[in-house]
Amino acid sequence: MASPIEFWFDFSSPYGYIAAELIDAVAARHGRGVNWRPILLGPIFKTVGTAPLTVLPLKGEYSRHDFARMARLHKVPFRLPETFPVGTQVAARAFYLIADRDSGKAHDFARRVFRAYYVEGRDVADPAVVLDLAGLAGADTATLAEELKGETIKERMKAEVDNAMKAGVFGSPYFIVDGEPFWGVDRIPMLEEWMRTGGW
Amino acid sequence: MASPIEFWFDFSSPYGYIAAELIDAVAARHGRGVNWRPILLGPIFKTVGTAPLTVLPLKGEYSRHDFARMARLHKVPFRLPETFPVGTQVAARAFYLIADRDSGKAHDFARRVFRAYYVEGRDVADPAVVLDLAGLAGADTATLAEELKGETIKERMKAEVDNAMKAGVFGSPYFIVDGEPFWGVDRIPMLEEWMRTGGW
Repeated sequence: MASPIEFWFDFSSPYGYIAAELIDAVAARHGRGVNWRPILLGPIFKTVGTAPLTVLPLKGEYSRHDFARMARLHKVPFRLPETFPVGTQVAARAFYLIADRDSGKAHDFARRVFRAYYVEGRDVADPAVVLDLAGLAGADTATLAEELKGETIKERMKAEVDNAMKAGVFGSPYFIVDGEPFWGVDRIPMLEEWMRTGGW
Repeated sequence: MASPIEFWFDFSSPYGYIAAELIDAVAARHGRGVNWRPILLGPIFKTVGTAPLTVLPLKGEYSRHDFARMARLHKVPFRLPETFPVGTQVAARAFYLIADRDSGKAHDFARRVFRAYYVEGRDVADPAVVLDLAGLAGADTATLAEELKGETIKERMKAEVDNAMKAGVFGSPYFIVDGEPFWGVDRIPMLEEWMRTGGW
């Protein structure tokens, strides 16, 4: 089997959410898996010297319009939450803790977090919500709650973000397949063309 | 005939250049014309609070890679000039002066400016190069040289940029068709789908 698509995203990223709804089917069409990897855009934006789209003049208004338009195009349910963006470090840390034991449960958890935020409007920055969603995905929430309090997972999360930046990641969603990087949900067609043809 | 595609671009924008090579054929397929409108990203980036892609950490490296990849995908000749980006105010002002007399010549001039910069590596910030290209496009270069010295065209150019921002423009290329905005050469497929279906 060909190498998986590396898929980086922030749980607070609308385009990351739309990509999350699409990428597994895209990968399957090309006989590949997907390696889901939540990151935190906060520290990444500091490095790049940028800011969340929605706070920028002109670009903010366009983005709000485009999030909804892109979701409609792909028939993905979407509502921009009233509180946006939110801190997603607890959700991202929980993801890696779950993934270390069971990648299938982590995948289920990730999709639940996105839908909780963008469909149900739940506050996924709230640790109680994160634990609830982890439980629904079949994770051991007592162990998870304990591990989330420790320093180990905080350091681990920092390392994940650093590694993402070392791989070139500066936004969400960001894909790498066979060493080739693609930024943005709107680049999924190009990513597919790359997998189909082997590049150009 | 349906209303034209409004097409904003900066002569120093690689994605603007690639879009310029594609957009006329795209419009023709949908029975539309194109209204070419050069802008200056400098003042626009100040308003938005951003910077040229290539100067940003991580994003800069990706962009350089992606410019060339996007050009190859569309079979557009491209070489990132050694001096990049350059000031394009003289070329943009010349465009509007030419367009006021003959929009066909202005269109020819615009394509020549882009190709001079991105294919031949000429310094399109140099007024002498701008006048040379204007002459090749059939414009009266003596009159143009005189008009470029005046304050009127500087004010006009400022107004064009202000009007673009009032229309929501914050990058290059930027398209509006039937009131719907699309940012980026990678959104041309979405723009086409919008024209084909009337929107979603």
